[in-house]
Amino acid sequence: MAIEVAILGATGAVGQRFIQLLENHPWFRVTEVVASERSSEKSYAEATNWVLTGSIPSDVAGLTVKSLDAPLTSPIVFSALPSTVAGEVEARLAAAGHYVCSNASTYRMADDVPILMPEVNAGHLQLIERQRSERGWKGALVTNSNCTAAPLVMAMAPLRQFQPKVLHVVSMQAISGAGYPGVASLDILDNVIPYIGGEEEKLKKEPSKMLGDYTNGKIDPLVMTVSAACNRVPVLDSHLVCVSAKFAEKPHLDDIYMAWEEFRGPDPVPGLPSAPNPPLIVMQENDRPQPRRDRDAGSGMATVIGRLRPCDVLDVQFIALAHNTIRGAAGCSILNAELMVAEGYINGITAATAESAVASA
Amino acid sequence: MAIEVAILGATGAVGQRFIQLLENHPWFRVTEVVASERSSEKSYAEATNWVLTGSIPSDVAGLTVKSLDAPLTSPIVFSALPSTVAGEVEARLAAAGHYVCSNASTYRMADDVPILMPEVNAGHLQLIERQRSERGWKGALVTNSNCTAAPLVMAMAPLRQFQPKVLHVVSMQAISGAGYPGVASLDILDNVIPYIGGEEEKLKKEPSKMLGDYTNGKIDPLVMTVSAACNRVPVLDSHLVCVSAKFAEKPHLDDIYMAWEEFRGPDPVPGLPSAPNPPLIVMQENDRPQPRRDRDAGSGMATVIGRLRPCDVLDVQFIALAHNTIRGAAGCSILNAELMVAEGYINGITAATAESAVASA
Amino acid sequence: MAIEVAILGATGAVGQRFIQLLENHPWFRVTEVVASERSSEKSYAEATNWVLTGSIPSDVAGLTVKSLDAPLTSPIVFSALPSTVAGEVEARLAAAGHYVCSNASTYRMADDVPILMPEVNAGHLQLIERQRSERGWKGALVTNSNCTAAPLVMAMAPLRQFQPKVLHVVSMQAISGAGYPGVASLDILDNVIPYIGGEEEKLKKEPSKMLGDYTNGKIDPLVMTVSAACNRVPVLDSHLVCVSAKFAEKPHLDDIYMAWEEFRGPDPVPGLPSAPNPPLIVMQENDRPQPRRDRDAGSGMATVIGRLRPCDVLDVQFIALAHNTIRGAAGCSILNAELMVAEGYINGITAATAESAVASA
Amino acid sequence: MAIEVAILGATGAVGQRFIQLLENHPWFRVTEVVASERSSEKSYAEATNWVLTGSIPSDVAGLTVKSLDAPLTSPIVFSALPSTVAGEVEARLAAAGHYVCSNASTYRMADDVPILMPEVNAGHLQLIERQRSERGWKGALVTNSNCTAAPLVMAMAPLRQFQPKVLHVVSMQAISGAGYPGVASLDILDNVIPYIGGEEEKLKKEPSKMLGDYTNGKIDPLVMTVSAACNRVPVLDSHLVCVSAKFAEKPHLDDIYMAWEEFRGPDPVPGLPSAPNPPLIVMQENDRPQPRRDRDAGSGMATVIGRLRPCDVLDVQFIALAHNTIRGAAGCSILNAELMVAEGYINGITAATAESAVASA
Repeated sequence: MAIEVAILGATGAVGQRFIQLLENHPWFRVTEVVASERSSEKSYAEATNWVLTGSIPSDVAGLTVKSLDAPLTSPIVFSALPSTVAGEVEARLAAAGHYVCSNASTYRMADDVPILMPEVNAGHLQLIERQRSERGWKGALVTNSNCTAAPLVMAMAPLRQFQPKVLHVVSMQAISGAGYPGVASLDILDNVIPYIGGEEEKLKKEPSKMLGDYTNGKIDPLVMTVSAACNRVPVLDSHLVCVSAKFAEKPHLDDIYMAWEEFRGPDPVPGLPSAPNPPLIVMQENDRPQPRRDRDAGSGMATVIGRLRPCDVLDVQFIALAHNTIRGAAGCSILNAELMVAEGYINGITAATAESAVASA
Repeated sequence: MAIEVAILGATGAVGQRFIQLLENHPWFRVTEVVASERSSEKSYAEATNWVLTGSIPSDVAGLTVKSLDAPLTSPIVFSALPSTVAGEVEARLAAAGHYVCSNASTYRMADDVPILMPEVNAGHLQLIERQRSERGWKGALVTNSNCTAAPLVMAMAPLRQFQPKVLHVVSMQAISGAGYPGVASLDILDNVIPYIGGEEEKLKKEPSKMLGDYTNGKIDPLVMTVSAACNRVPVLDSHLVCVSAKFAEKPHLDDIYMAWEEFRGPDPVPGLPSAPNPPLIVMQENDRPQPRRDRDAGSGMATVIGRLRPCDVLDVQFIALAHNTIRGAAGCSILNAELMVAEGYINGITAATAESAVASA
Repeated sequence: MAIEVAILGATGAVGQRFIQLLENHPWFRVTEVVASERSSEKSYAEATNWVLTGSIPSDVAGLTVKSLDAPLTSPIVFSALPSTVAGEVEARLAAAGHYVCSNASTYRMADDVPILMPEVNAGHLQLIERQRSERGWKGALVTNSNCTAAPLVMAMAPLRQFQPKVLHVVSMQAISGAGYPGVASLDILDNVIPYIGGEEEKLKKEPSKMLGDYTNGKIDPLVMTVSAACNRVPVLDSHLVCVSAKFAEKPHLDDIYMAWEEFRGPDPVPGLPSAPNPPLIVMQENDRPQPRRDRDAGSGMATVIGRLRPCDVLDVQFIALAHNTIRGAAGCSILNAELMVAEGYINGITAATAESAVASA
Repeated sequence: MAIEVAILGATGAVGQRFIQLLENHPWFRVTEVVASERSSEKSYAEATNWVLTGSIPSDVAGLTVKSLDAPLTSPIVFSALPSTVAGEVEARLAAAGHYVCSNASTYRMADDVPILMPEVNAGHLQLIERQRSERGWKGALVTNSNCTAAPLVMAMAPLRQFQPKVLHVVSMQAISGAGYPGVASLDILDNVIPYIGGEEEKLKKEPSKMLGDYTNGKIDPLVMTVSAACNRVPVLDSHLVCVSAKFAEKPHLDDIYMAWEEFRGPDPVPGLPSAPNPPLIVMQENDRPQPRRDRDAGSGMATVIGRLRPCDVLDVQFIALAHNTIRGAAGCSILNAELMVAEGYINGITAATAESAVASA
């Protein structure tokens, strides 16, 4: 039997991306779509203004949209809910035994909730035990990071060995990061909006937790100072960050290149269906990565890095790019769920049984 | 009699901007247009693919384009030549008695050539004496800065009292900065190009010289460390810089606001025809300045500043924006020429005589 | 005394354009701003997300927003209300003695309401008498056309002498035509939306009425067949129409050129403050007019025409462009109000008294 | 053995698209890349500024670029040469025994050269016999249509039964149609260019030939009157046409829908590797197809049709869209070559042997 999954906030832009990415997933099958009252009881096709390319996958188009308070049967629940409503719904589902993979920021900084990025911190999954013992949840809740933190954390993970102490980040972010309808065209055509509400705060806090170590039921954050300036640019998808970094053990540029190129993440991550291989792509052209040309690298799951050079103020400078609604949102959640399956968290289901079930269907 | 001016590189994008800005200038009248061999002997209208809005001003449309080696009669010469050819031509004209206001980077870092930004360093004009004594020029050569340095230097000038020591700059630059045809649409639509050849080097060097003091025939640069990362974004006009700064005397944010708001530049600059009043506009909205909405402030000559806040890495962060082909190029050159007239450099011509001549024409 | 005017729907995109265009108007001064309940009792600056370039004119920023049911004192009322609410509000104000110049489509096709385009059909203003006798209004209501009909009608008006019988129109329309927030950037960046709700119907109906003759209290429409296909393109302002036309008296191309070039509109229209001079600009370059380069011709009030050539299917083809929120909306309403003043409709106020009042203020 | 193919003009935008599309082709393998003198003797990676997404396929990156006069060994030659140089080179190669599939317009209207669109006019391939007998060529030359004619002809092909007599076409075309660097960003951002040199003439001539019948060594064109107006819009890929059509036998809309939906093209076309299935996709949403959302339908080979409705001037109106560098250029050429293989034109090679060779490689 394929593993059934539900999508919360299924009609929104990130919800749509979940459905698109899961269309031919080897383990998962979308069987429940959940949205606000306004959409419920309609078919998904009726309820949804599909904003991605192509059309709604036919097996999802006919599903009836459930309301947020409906009980669910899928063991795995992907949440694309806005943070204003995510809190209560996600906790209730985790308590009831579901494995919730959330894009919302609500629980990211909670002590017992991981901001999971499998290549970087698969071990943080052990916080689930604490969720069970302290909150009494039968299921679990894992979050993924802010979409701009994704390329930053992916690029910094292999450099933890050099003890990063200071990061200065300026982002150029795609319009899809604001959802749909999101950014008005009158605001962004021939323009840059030099501010994104709440984004800089997340970018300052989340990387330290994500890059920290799990020990004895808690995460010791990597102590770093982070400065952030976030900008919206007229680009459809993928966020680009200009990073300057300072380390306790200043590396040579070649050490950094080697660290990036050898980076794979711990087993079993490289073998998961949605894991890009390699997770980091380092470009040598001096004008790459570029959002439009590189966002689909690794099917949108790779982080693309370029322009490594000395920084006159900190130690080094570079740029990094990742697809904001794939690596920075829906794709990462799916990878997180794959990791939970592979680690045996989902009762009675292993990757092998899921795969053979889907294959024989 | 109005003061006659010549435009070198008149058919290019910056050359066109000169002609547009000079259309109703109270002192200057364009009487000579100069371009490469390919255009010479044609009428300006025939030789030019006008890329700005509207049409070619009618009194310039009929001028016959002169070649680069033709002798000129105009006392003031505005140069929009590419740096590859500017060197020889500009020096020859300065030697022959013309006052050359150049956009080219060729002579910017020469010890006896000012990078003039009247509000910031009008005193640097005294280097002209050295050009005469050492080079034997009868005229003079002044340059204006790189277009991205313009908003940075304008914003930092009032803060010199706090002794800036470190600047970290990330730019988002308009396509018009690359001239015409310049950036291919296939390269920039739905994209960012995270590299502009030569730009970061200029941004590291020019501000120190521009913010320095003139003493005894030379400029003592302001000693600062500058880090720069330059990006091209899908915006037509105006460059936006994200700046972090550290000072020897760390100011309060209110001190900075006050310094910006009181800044006017030395006499006679505020009274010059092209001087914006005030030169700095500080916005309090958290998402401003924006390129499309703020580039025309002060007729494109103002620098618009916003988002002043503490920086977690250096002392403070802010953003600044200026129109790259007006304040960062043609408009600044015109202001430089106005300053030379006002300071009496142009033989026998004063601002008053020029103005009354144009007015009575 | 200047003539006081009120703006209905003042906080929206077209409302903002009214305020921008009226900033230095020689006759009119904005003294009342009206918007929905949500905005009322706030200052205009607080209530408004200003989406145009620059900032809110200072004398309007401090006005307190009135609610839609508040009584007004201004003799002239400009309406930028959505058609869903315009009907009741505009009729009430016209009944009460105000001269309402409306952008809403609600009353456009009413038998006693003109779709006024002063250069084209100034005589339609006589319908006001019928409004008074039949509806008992003390004031009056005039509308302006759909924004896409504007360039079409302006281009066809001088060709009425050749008896147009068939028009085939394909439009490429700017995003500002949909108001704010209007078109989502995710819908239009790198895209065309080949449909605009209700637009094609308006384009088929309004021109016949606008180009018709006023006789004996009613308008005889110009009988024409019109086909329309409307598209939204990633352009900020101005609508471009590709027109093919067939006439009962097929003209030579030169006859058409002459008709366009000689067109001025009837007195007193050419002398009104907002009337462009000339109203039609005919370009000979084969790739003009273009939205970005030509939309500001005549301060946004001119219609720019180009590419006149034979059509293989009908008689001739050409393209025409006009600024959709100026000529196609706010600017045309202002011109309509100017015409009413000049024709003496506004009790006790003449153009001369208004102008001298503003000039001496 | 796979069938070896050469790409002429391999470094340009369409040449790159050929290489991208052929990366995993089941029959063909790129073994020769040919470009102008400037590139020859460099590796393809050195000679090419790759402008598509992603990177150069690794097996092509290392090929040495050959000059235009070099002898070739590949039986099939794809030409992306500009029409200014295509004439001589393509004829020489066809004479020498190569099967040349050309995107250039040079030979399109020659009596013995087909403008091949396999679903529409596979029978035109028989003109090859005439090329051999009259020109003495050992190979052959087939062209594909102008990129804007592609969606028009695909949409009209199933409607030939109703005898189309009049077409009125207005296009909105992508920037990639102009090649690289092609359209300057300063010309197209926030703009429409209402003219594309030579395009309207092609759109008037090519469809009649393409939709004609092959009889006795020549093509009887479908006699139609076509009017065309071509516009460039800020879209990366895919051309959209607004079509009005008149027929001798006016069909009901339902007849047209049925004709489109049943259309497949003659055997063996539907089974060819690059043939989209179905070739026409009819959308019922009133705002589709849209360039960005629908250009990749059928891997860029489908034609997407929408908005069928009565036309007030001709009989019916609709819109059609196709990817200009895939269906309108490189992809169609590849399909043409596949048809030639399937029809046994390429000596000693059948589809079956090619496929098994590639599969076992």
